Amino acid sequence: MSEPSPPNKISQRARTNLETPVPLRVNLIRALPTLYHPTLNPTGGINMGLAHNDLMQKELLEKVSTCLAFEPSDLDYGDPHGSRILRGLVADLMNRHFKPVKALHFRNITVVPGAGAAVWQLIQSLADPGDAVLVFAPYYGNFDLDVCVSTGVELVPVYPHTSMDGALAPEWDTVPHAKILLVTNPRNPHGCCYSVEDMIKILKFASTHSLHVIFDEVYGLSTFDDSNFEPFTSILSLPDIESYIDPQLVHVIYGMSKDFCMNGLRLGFIVDQYNLDLRSAVTISSMFGYMSTVNDRLACNLLKDTEWIDWFVTTSQARLSQAYRLATDYLDSLDLTYLPSGVGPFIVVDLRRLFSRSTMTFELESAIWEAALDNGVYVAQGQVFHVLEPGFFRLTYTLEWSQVKKGIDIFHRTIKSFVV
Amino acid sequence: MSEPSPPNKISQRARTNLETPVPLRVNLIRALPTLYHPTLNPTGGINMGLAHNDLMQKELLEKVSTCLAFEPSDLDYGDPHGSRILRGLVADLMNRHFKPVKALHFRNITVVPGAGAAVWQLIQSLADPGDAVLVFAPYYGNFDLDVCVSTGVELVPVYPHTSMDGALAPEWDTVPHAKILLVTNPRNPHGCCYSVEDMIKILKFASTHSLHVIFDEVYGLSTFDDSNFEPFTSILSLPDIESYIDPQLVHVIYGMSKDFCMNGLRLGFIVDQYNLDLRSAVTISSMFGYMSTVNDRLACNLLKDTEWIDWFVTTSQARLSQAYRLATDYLDSLDLTYLPSGVGPFIVVDLRRLFSRSTMTFELESAIWEAALDNGVYVAQGQVFHVLEPGFFRLTYTLEWSQVKKGIDIFHRTIKSFVV
Repeated sequence: MSEPSPPNKISQRARTNLETPVPLRVNLIRALPTLYHPTLNPTGGINMGLAHNDLMQKELLEKVSTCLAFEPSDLDYGDPHGSRILRGLVADLMNRHFKPVKALHFRNITVVPGAGAAVWQLIQSLADPGDAVLVFAPYYGNFDLDVCVSTGVELVPVYPHTSMDGALAPEWDTVPHAKILLVTNPRNPHGCCYSVEDMIKILKFASTHSLHVIFDEVYGLSTFDDSNFEPFTSILSLPDIESYIDPQLVHVIYGMSKDFCMNGLRLGFIVDQYNLDLRSAVTISSMFGYMSTVNDRLACNLLKDTEWIDWFVTTSQARLSQAYRLATDYLDSLDLTYLPSGVGPFIVVDLRRLFSRSTMTFELESAIWEAALDNGVYVAQGQVFHVLEPGFFRLTYTLEWSQVKKGIDIFHRTIKSFVV
Repeated sequence: MSEPSPPNKISQRARTNLETPVPLRVNLIRALPTLYHPTLNPTGGINMGLAHNDLMQKELLEKVSTCLAFEPSDLDYGDPHGSRILRGLVADLMNRHFKPVKALHFRNITVVPGAGAAVWQLIQSLADPGDAVLVFAPYYGNFDLDVCVSTGVELVPVYPHTSMDGALAPEWDTVPHAKILLVTNPRNPHGCCYSVEDMIKILKFASTHSLHVIFDEVYGLSTFDDSNFEPFTSILSLPDIESYIDPQLVHVIYGMSKDFCMNGLRLGFIVDQYNLDLRSAVTISSMFGYMSTVNDRLACNLLKDTEWIDWFVTTSQARLSQAYRLATDYLDSLDLTYLPSGVGPFIVVDLRRLFSRSTMTFELESAIWEAALDNGVYVAQGQVFHVLEPGFFRLTYTLEWSQVKKGIDIFHRTIKSFVV
């Protein structure tokens, strides 16, 4: 018998994971060490690249400090996918704010460590190696990993809008091996919501092509201007969904990172009301993202104060509105063009007007991004969201105003240095 | 064009996950609703089936309550695989207690939500669909899931010991498609440690057959009788490991669930000193088990009090010794046979002497297990650890003595009802 060949250092799938191109991650790895950190880098740059929201920080910190607790039973195994109490409180939260047609029950909620983990769990539970996932593009750049890591699934961007801020086109493409359609609503990077008509169109498309459809609704409660923009409607609240699609094919993701300004606590939720097999499947695989009891208890203590939670949602929306106005007034004063928006902690700035069509390339976009970073502000370039046309940048405006102003100033100065 | 066929409710891999036979899980699902819970089931049965340890509970609760904290930066994204500070503290802990040949550094540690998640991460990073993982059997029954969920990998038990409590046999089997050997040291269910000679033999076997080898050392600091039993030696402390195997193929799992009596906090560690690609791979996939900042900070505050931690280890071992003596003296008084042990929170009771060889079947073992549960005590039957011969039961003895005594009494009474 011949000698066995020397084993690989890692598996082929791990190698594929490492080689998956993820522009968002490349930029993040480049940016993070340069950014402000209270202890590690107190003179670092301003972070307007990540979607985080400091506007409610003071009240949130006060509240969280009263919610920290630990009981003897917390030393024992908790539930990998969240305690029954936590799942019930999440169901209540969504019953109050997402207006589901059929009230949610704790059984409809699976808790996972963040919305990214929710995407990953759903993909591997609904698709097999060789299958494809269609994603409405531009899209949140970490989907490149959330969909593909160790799943053997291909992510295929579909551009269904007539332009970056345009309406849904009359029709859009699919691929033969597609099994899932992934839709972010409200949208990211351009914060806007799908209308009920759009959602019905999406459901019918999915049904026609035999696709599961995942609605990522993590920005659902971050709307702040329903009078001028399409308000948010959760797919859970759509009446007669079964007249458009088998509801077992419709899945919802929510979480507390965005609307509740706590990226650090890793509270992501998979919501399912019709597909029992799926719930069983994610209950098993949730073991590898096993919820800590201390996090579970903290989340319970926070969510059970429903009065405070509902005050938080309203107040946060009011502050988003105020901060958006400050930031956009300032962009206006600098004559910087942006895509008007009524949802989310970021604004998409459009530089195309400042450069000729032939000048504005993805290379130039990257050069501006890099120079802005060197000058002290991290913004997110359109490329990381797989925007088709160069010249778009997403800026988080939900920081202290002095920081936002300083960040915009640096970005503006950087842009000017590139304008001939 | 023909209509696409209706999509499956879940993927084939999710279906396979649901259909994987896992005796441990079957028993757990049957047992859990019957067991004592302070609020949900105050009159429930005694849990001697799970490996949990209440002997240090009072001191642990006092300490943990002083370690709970939350800082403004905890609202922001933390590190999916543990903060640099936490990873450094884990490295320090293991440098003090596992005596690695080469001192560990924060870069050598990846934090994941429990040792089960560590197994899963390593399997999918080291093996591909169609590969096999050899596991030294009997083994911790949840490996059936930790190894197989969504990995496409086959788990193949190997019985390398001459008997349940016997030495390593001169040689043991492999299969052609094996890529990994999984070894638990100290062993579970029978708490005992491999000698240095055994470990060298294991490494040489792995090297000869081109296998990665994973040492799960989660009970490494739960030894309490080194004078009568083989003491624990971490594979990290083995000198000249490279003379036996390429050290890039050797991987270690540790965690705080067992030695630190905190199953609920989900602190599992992958330790690697030689395989950079593997570290990069698990850094990416750790995103789907993303560490919460509140858990990270709690663990840091706990581990940084090294004096307390080291006191805890010593005191816990002394209490294990005392509790083991109480429990085994009582088993002796009832004339129940057990496998003597010097490590871990459980004892393996051997009923074979009480029944004729033809009477003691796996059916009888299951009937005794079921009857004991109905009578008020949950124990772990040998079958869930894939023991080859029927008649073994693992009993956790690290509860309050009155509970242990009551549990043994119920178990003893149950057994007697089966003896003709």
